[in-house]
Amino acid sequence: MTDDAPKVERLERDALGAISIPQDAYYGPQTARGIVNFPISGISINHFPAFIKALAYVKMAAARANAALGHLDQGKADIICRVCAELIDGRHLAEFPLDVFQGGAGTSTNMNVNEVIANRGLELLGLPRGRYDQLHPNDHVNHAQSTNDVYPTAIRLAILLSHGQLQKSLERLASEFEARSEDFKDVIKLGRTQLQDAVPMTLGQEFQAFAATLREDVARIGETTAFFREINLGGTAIGTGINTCNGYQSAVVEELRLVSGMPLVSAGNLIEACWDTGAFVLFSGMLKRTATKLSKISNDLRLLSSGPRGGLNEINLPALQPGSSIMPGKVNPVVLEVVNQVAFQVIGYDLTVTLASEAGQLQLNVMEPVIAFNVLHSLELLTNASDVLRTKCVVGITANVETCRMHLEASTAVATALTPVIGYERASALAQEVLASGRTIREVLAEQPDLSEDLILITADPGVLTRPSKPRLAS
Amino acid sequence: MTDDAPKVERLERDALGAISIPQDAYYGPQTARGIVNFPISGISINHFPAFIKALAYVKMAAARANAALGHLDQGKADIICRVCAELIDGRHLAEFPLDVFQGGAGTSTNMNVNEVIANRGLELLGLPRGRYDQLHPNDHVNHAQSTNDVYPTAIRLAILLSHGQLQKSLERLASEFEARSEDFKDVIKLGRTQLQDAVPMTLGQEFQAFAATLREDVARIGETTAFFREINLGGTAIGTGINTCNGYQSAVVEELRLVSGMPLVSAGNLIEACWDTGAFVLFSGMLKRTATKLSKISNDLRLLSSGPRGGLNEINLPALQPGSSIMPGKVNPVVLEVVNQVAFQVIGYDLTVTLASEAGQLQLNVMEPVIAFNVLHSLELLTNASDVLRTKCVVGITANVETCRMHLEASTAVATALTPVIGYERASALAQEVLASGRTIREVLAEQPDLSEDLILITADPGVLTRPSKPRLAS
Amino acid sequence: MTDDAPKVERLERDALGAISIPQDAYYGPQTARGIVNFPISGISINHFPAFIKALAYVKMAAARANAALGHLDQGKADIICRVCAELIDGRHLAEFPLDVFQGGAGTSTNMNVNEVIANRGLELLGLPRGRYDQLHPNDHVNHAQSTNDVYPTAIRLAILLSHGQLQKSLERLASEFEARSEDFKDVIKLGRTQLQDAVPMTLGQEFQAFAATLREDVARIGETTAFFREINLGGTAIGTGINTCNGYQSAVVEELRLVSGMPLVSAGNLIEACWDTGAFVLFSGMLKRTATKLSKISNDLRLLSSGPRGGLNEINLPALQPGSSIMPGKVNPVVLEVVNQVAFQVIGYDLTVTLASEAGQLQLNVMEPVIAFNVLHSLELLTNASDVLRTKCVVGITANVETCRMHLEASTAVATALTPVIGYERASALAQEVLASGRTIREVLAEQPDLSEDLILITADPGVLTRPSKPRLAS
Amino acid sequence: MTDDAPKVERLERDALGAISIPQDAYYGPQTARGIVNFPISGISINHFPAFIKALAYVKMAAARANAALGHLDQGKADIICRVCAELIDGRHLAEFPLDVFQGGAGTSTNMNVNEVIANRGLELLGLPRGRYDQLHPNDHVNHAQSTNDVYPTAIRLAILLSHGQLQKSLERLASEFEARSEDFKDVIKLGRTQLQDAVPMTLGQEFQAFAATLREDVARIGETTAFFREINLGGTAIGTGINTCNGYQSAVVEELRLVSGMPLVSAGNLIEACWDTGAFVLFSGMLKRTATKLSKISNDLRLLSSGPRGGLNEINLPALQPGSSIMPGKVNPVVLEVVNQVAFQVIGYDLTVTLASEAGQLQLNVMEPVIAFNVLHSLELLTNASDVLRTKCVVGITANVETCRMHLEASTAVATALTPVIGYERASALAQEVLASGRTIREVLAEQPDLSEDLILITADPGVLTRPSKPRLAS
Repeated sequence: MTDDAPKVERLERDALGAISIPQDAYYGPQTARGIVNFPISGISINHFPAFIKALAYVKMAAARANAALGHLDQGKADIICRVCAELIDGRHLAEFPLDVFQGGAGTSTNMNVNEVIANRGLELLGLPRGRYDQLHPNDHVNHAQSTNDVYPTAIRLAILLSHGQLQKSLERLASEFEARSEDFKDVIKLGRTQLQDAVPMTLGQEFQAFAATLREDVARIGETTAFFREINLGGTAIGTGINTCNGYQSAVVEELRLVSGMPLVSAGNLIEACWDTGAFVLFSGMLKRTATKLSKISNDLRLLSSGPRGGLNEINLPALQPGSSIMPGKVNPVVLEVVNQVAFQVIGYDLTVTLASEAGQLQLNVMEPVIAFNVLHSLELLTNASDVLRTKCVVGITANVETCRMHLEASTAVATALTPVIGYERASALAQEVLASGRTIREVLAEQPDLSEDLILITADPGVLTRPSKPRLAS
Repeated sequence: MTDDAPKVERLERDALGAISIPQDAYYGPQTARGIVNFPISGISINHFPAFIKALAYVKMAAARANAALGHLDQGKADIICRVCAELIDGRHLAEFPLDVFQGGAGTSTNMNVNEVIANRGLELLGLPRGRYDQLHPNDHVNHAQSTNDVYPTAIRLAILLSHGQLQKSLERLASEFEARSEDFKDVIKLGRTQLQDAVPMTLGQEFQAFAATLREDVARIGETTAFFREINLGGTAIGTGINTCNGYQSAVVEELRLVSGMPLVSAGNLIEACWDTGAFVLFSGMLKRTATKLSKISNDLRLLSSGPRGGLNEINLPALQPGSSIMPGKVNPVVLEVVNQVAFQVIGYDLTVTLASEAGQLQLNVMEPVIAFNVLHSLELLTNASDVLRTKCVVGITANVETCRMHLEASTAVATALTPVIGYERASALAQEVLASGRTIREVLAEQPDLSEDLILITADPGVLTRPSKPRLAS
Repeated sequence: MTDDAPKVERLERDALGAISIPQDAYYGPQTARGIVNFPISGISINHFPAFIKALAYVKMAAARANAALGHLDQGKADIICRVCAELIDGRHLAEFPLDVFQGGAGTSTNMNVNEVIANRGLELLGLPRGRYDQLHPNDHVNHAQSTNDVYPTAIRLAILLSHGQLQKSLERLASEFEARSEDFKDVIKLGRTQLQDAVPMTLGQEFQAFAATLREDVARIGETTAFFREINLGGTAIGTGINTCNGYQSAVVEELRLVSGMPLVSAGNLIEACWDTGAFVLFSGMLKRTATKLSKISNDLRLLSSGPRGGLNEINLPALQPGSSIMPGKVNPVVLEVVNQVAFQVIGYDLTVTLASEAGQLQLNVMEPVIAFNVLHSLELLTNASDVLRTKCVVGITANVETCRMHLEASTAVATALTPVIGYERASALAQEVLASGRTIREVLAEQPDLSEDLILITADPGVLTRPSKPRLAS
Repeated sequence: MTDDAPKVERLERDALGAISIPQDAYYGPQTARGIVNFPISGISINHFPAFIKALAYVKMAAARANAALGHLDQGKADIICRVCAELIDGRHLAEFPLDVFQGGAGTSTNMNVNEVIANRGLELLGLPRGRYDQLHPNDHVNHAQSTNDVYPTAIRLAILLSHGQLQKSLERLASEFEARSEDFKDVIKLGRTQLQDAVPMTLGQEFQAFAATLREDVARIGETTAFFREINLGGTAIGTGINTCNGYQSAVVEELRLVSGMPLVSAGNLIEACWDTGAFVLFSGMLKRTATKLSKISNDLRLLSSGPRGGLNEINLPALQPGSSIMPGKVNPVVLEVVNQVAFQVIGYDLTVTLASEAGQLQLNVMEPVIAFNVLHSLELLTNASDVLRTKCVVGITANVETCRMHLEASTAVATALTPVIGYERASALAQEVLASGRTIREVLAEQPDLSEDLILITADPGVLTRPSKPRLAS
């Protein structure tokens, strides 16, 4: 079908009048209005399949709870659940074309799901689209629900469904750093503070620290995600549970736990849970932390691989693509650079989440759609960046053992080890002499008549100095 | 073609070996590597047609300059220009599938354009894709160019090609506010500071201020965009102009000015211009300012239209969609809410631009791809939000004249006008009496035997108090 | 002493030569250099007494561990501990005049403490300042230490010593909100979403949610602070423990746990712990979350107290000061406004912490001084803002019961309760009729012949609708 | 006087009752309430003398305009002006102890100035403090003024009074970089992109770019400051000019222009100017840009001076203080590190300004005090950092000519120059051979029988390659 072909449309009505909808679309009038009202970013909600899936789980849980409590015909509940199962399977994604930016606190998205379920359900029942008297988007699919409990619950569930991938990706990345750490455990090198020569360490220690820092974040991500387990489903419009019977709220949370397999619980205060977005701020802040770590690691790797002739050149990165359109032979740390940029984006996204969270008013935070976009895209960006960093870069890093050794030997790094014996001031003077003369520390030490051979030997074995180490004067 | 159909591929080689490419693709091996290396965000560079167009202008300008200077065969230059003209027309967008996130400072994007031009040019010449000896992506299309001058120039040009739409959209929005201001020029109401009753004003004055503040931004956007006119094209790899002959740099800038129609000039210091991204920071900061203004205006309109029964209810917004999936009859300020969210995103994007700018190192800022994405998407978001705000909201705002009057009359707003005559302390006491008693200020004033009728009359005509106004006691 | 009096100075030397120091100052040459090198912000490190105290604890712990391990003369250790005890008592604060902004990763601050301890110790020993052969800032006070383990440890300890005040302040604030919640438990009012009339609730529920949300943060602050218990003390320059003997690292951490009373543990990977600042990013992100909540609550209270005549006017705030220099009788929500501003500052500070954290390089994060300033000042700001919010505002809030009732009755809020029985579409039509006609919902319902009295009664008792509630048709 | 001495206090009254004030204080009851109400940050408004000075100019201008228009007794006006002159001279700073954080949109600050002027004026008249019937803080000193026009005007004026110092500091810094550029104009070195060896340049070119980029910012700061010339003085409470007579507004702006010497003009729309803070957002964004540039330059200088043995070591920084408490001989780039931290702070401050600006509501932005603090402190930080960077660092930088040369010669940088002749692909192959073999590019080129001596000679003179340069094959 070309763009010029006349589109077949059907007409539906809602409280604001008639609106035209593509004939075959499962979605209905409120989605159609949302499409017209929000032509904002060019990014659709189906960019995030986990989010559509989460919405379907919520609708399934509500249908089951309503049927069990006698508020919804079992036949209608069954057909709703059948469509939800299709959505959970990833079908009908094209039916969710709404922009990720939308007003109404997600009402358009909630109604999109309600309408798709209703019309696809009607189709399964052999009825035409729009026969809402038989299966109504509001009265049946959305029964005992409000956007204000459905939508926040679905975002939280989408994060619970997605964050494991990031954790797994980071854990694999940590393992890969650890593998390099093992490879490099005997590569002695110069440790640097403030970009200045400091004291000896091994390249293995340097890489082991990358593994350690990322593993902390795997744990912290798990902990901060746990707060999304608390949901306000059943609180309806403002958390008071209006339009629900006693028992519905606990029942629907239990059903959602069952169908989604996620360990969900009711929020302690449903009024607060209706407007509070603190869990997003904390989690987004945590993703920001992971971003800063990935950026720091990328910066280090770019520094260590700088050169090859006019830089530190202590490690080699795998070549992935020609580095320049003009400079032949140049190979650039492109994956590390993309990780840096992802980090900057995630930090920017965290700010947007913060602003949106602060803007909540009275009984609702209407800015949740932009929170959802930024958190879910951050998860996607970090997961992909972490995967690429591992598979295209860390896996192939090798050490320039000789360069590492050379930098260390040329430096005054071992002078630090002398201070417990000869004092800070004399050690400083010796170090300055080394740097001024261009000689090595060993040469300068050899000229000090009063220094014991033991002491000088210690400085000659920098491997010892990569562990707790303190010379004592022979008595 | 379904996803399951076997894809026909061709094999090409670059410095890193062979790589497979879809048979019909105009793009070549370096683009293919970029696709594999950067599966990051799910958003492609062709999301921004103005950017592809800008790249084509640059390539056209370089081909013309190189030919004129005798460094490129005229036939090759002609075919390059022919393809560029197609790209400028918006053709072949699908050939630019690279992710907006990429390492290499835009080398992949630059090579994508080079390869598409080469292969489409070969096709026009009746030659098969890959016959780069006849038209080479680097040696011919990229002749005398580096990604490091092409890419920064193209981003700047893309902004110059796009910002006018935002200015036009904001100007139209300002005009629409002005039209409402005219409609509302006689609607007397309560001005508020700190959300507390203050002094009288007209609703027309309130809306006129929205027009005025946006018009300032139209001007400021123009001024801050002007700095993008300074380009580093011709500086090649680091701004020294290596691989260009004397005269090329001025020639290629002149050609780009001609073909693009934009008033471009050479940057004063090409070394600096190669790494400096300050113009992006300033411009992005300016977009952030526009975002805060749009957000403030949206907040005001949401406040003024709050209610209808439990809020200020001084204005009515057009109803765009049913406001709630559970609460019948509710109509929400959905467009204003989306404008707020766009503002939060633009502020977040500005932070990302800032971080990326700060991360430039030595002779290049390698983070430019993420700068390009954030600035160009901000422009898109603000333009769309401003259009929607005008066409779906401001155009249909009406005043609740009676509510405006009622709020004013019930308040002590006119008491301020008494202070020049009766002093701050006595005026305070009277105002407190009004608030404590629940009576109106007029009733309380009537009981003050020493106050002249003239004075009381002044407070009875709040319209006077919406202009400079100061009562004097009759002598 | 006037500023014009000639200052008596003494001369000291370090590796860079001689430098003049105020005669009586305990601090020494490196502090003096720091004062000259960093005249930046006008804010001194002694703005944060907990930080000076934490540094003293670290020095005391190191002296004890060194003495116990036989590396430091017991007499010297004793005198060091004596001075530390004075510092822990809050004495000598004026001896720490260094700017909070400083390069060197805190070396100046560490040396400031070392020098003050040495010279005050010499004084206690009856020796003149500068007799460092008897008690040396580096060789004795700083023995087995590096700024790179002392300084990060001290910041962490300072936070551990300070955060309890914030938690206590927030807990008290929550209790105060809870007390108001109890006061207001029978005040029925209109709940609002998107600033539009929604469904009934009680003012008590609204305030209870404020208590609940703050209590969550008390817990989260505790959890995120816990990560500061992991310290790198004993790792010295880069975490390898150079210049320490086996056993020192665990000994010094144990000593610090004892003297400070804080449950400190050794970081799992000391190399990583030397450069990692992730705990600051997470904690600062958490403070940012608290800031957004306090800001949201302040916004709500400002809205609810707006007016008094032209706003919601549902609650009254205590008057603290005349509200205006020109408008008599105006009383403004000044405490809430300062809380908003504190929130904005804390969010800005969080960004600075993030930037500084990302900028760590290789074996150290040299930006820790700016991290320390921003985190410690955020703690101070939030604690003070929370105290002021409680004592000057929340404690005195009263309800306007009648206004609350009036807003609710005038609205269509109860229409939502009808939808389970009469359907969303008919309920919408009725609500629209109410709003268009200006009548109340009760009047309109009374005209519907088919609606049972039971149903109408339910809508007449909005108190029921503040809990889970769902009418059923009599069978 | 010790802290234990009983303080002598006087009692004054305002609309909220009696309050105790230190006997000798010029400030009065509203300042006293502000001190009690806002114990927030520990930073007082007198941290910024230019701000107090600006407030005094405003009060002087208002007194003169009011007297000229016959609304204020000339004697009272004279005494007000006399006190203002003292304040402009920098006297009485201790009388402004209010916290920089305050609610009330600056009302406390405005009243602080009004009260100090009244009581000091009374003293000059030989009257006791508190005789406000003779000189009243509101009725006389604040005559025809509101905090809402006084305070925003004073912040703007304070910036106009201060920004020149920053511009001068940056200009001097640029000149110092230029002086180094001249020193280094013949130092040939390796240019780097993406931290990888790129093409030749001179160290002079590198430093010249620093000068150029800072000079741009001197100009941009001037341009963005110009918007502060538009003031809303005379608009009083909400911009309508209530309580002013016709002619006052233009008169008071003219007086302020005269007394302050600043080229002030009336804002075009006084209603908008009362709430708009866009000029702060743009200016703060500009300061942020300067911060990113200073940070980038500091990063570059830290990189270029890294080592000395295990880093690039192309330049030497002056040693300012011993670099480490444990590592003898270490000298760190402490000034550059402090500049980085200042940059991070300024970027965080810009965010706070943005948040505060977005939070304006209706006719006023009540968050201006936090805007004032952040903008004024940013100015102070940047000015100091720029001064320190120049005087303590740039002035003493020297080049390691030999290291620069060595890095260049070892690299394949000159291979780029071959591509116009031998093509990108062959040049790539040669470069790869150099890097793989460990030989120099000259050695490898010498083995290519078909390459002309001319061509090889070109690559042997990298100085040529620091300018536009393109070899042609001899025909």
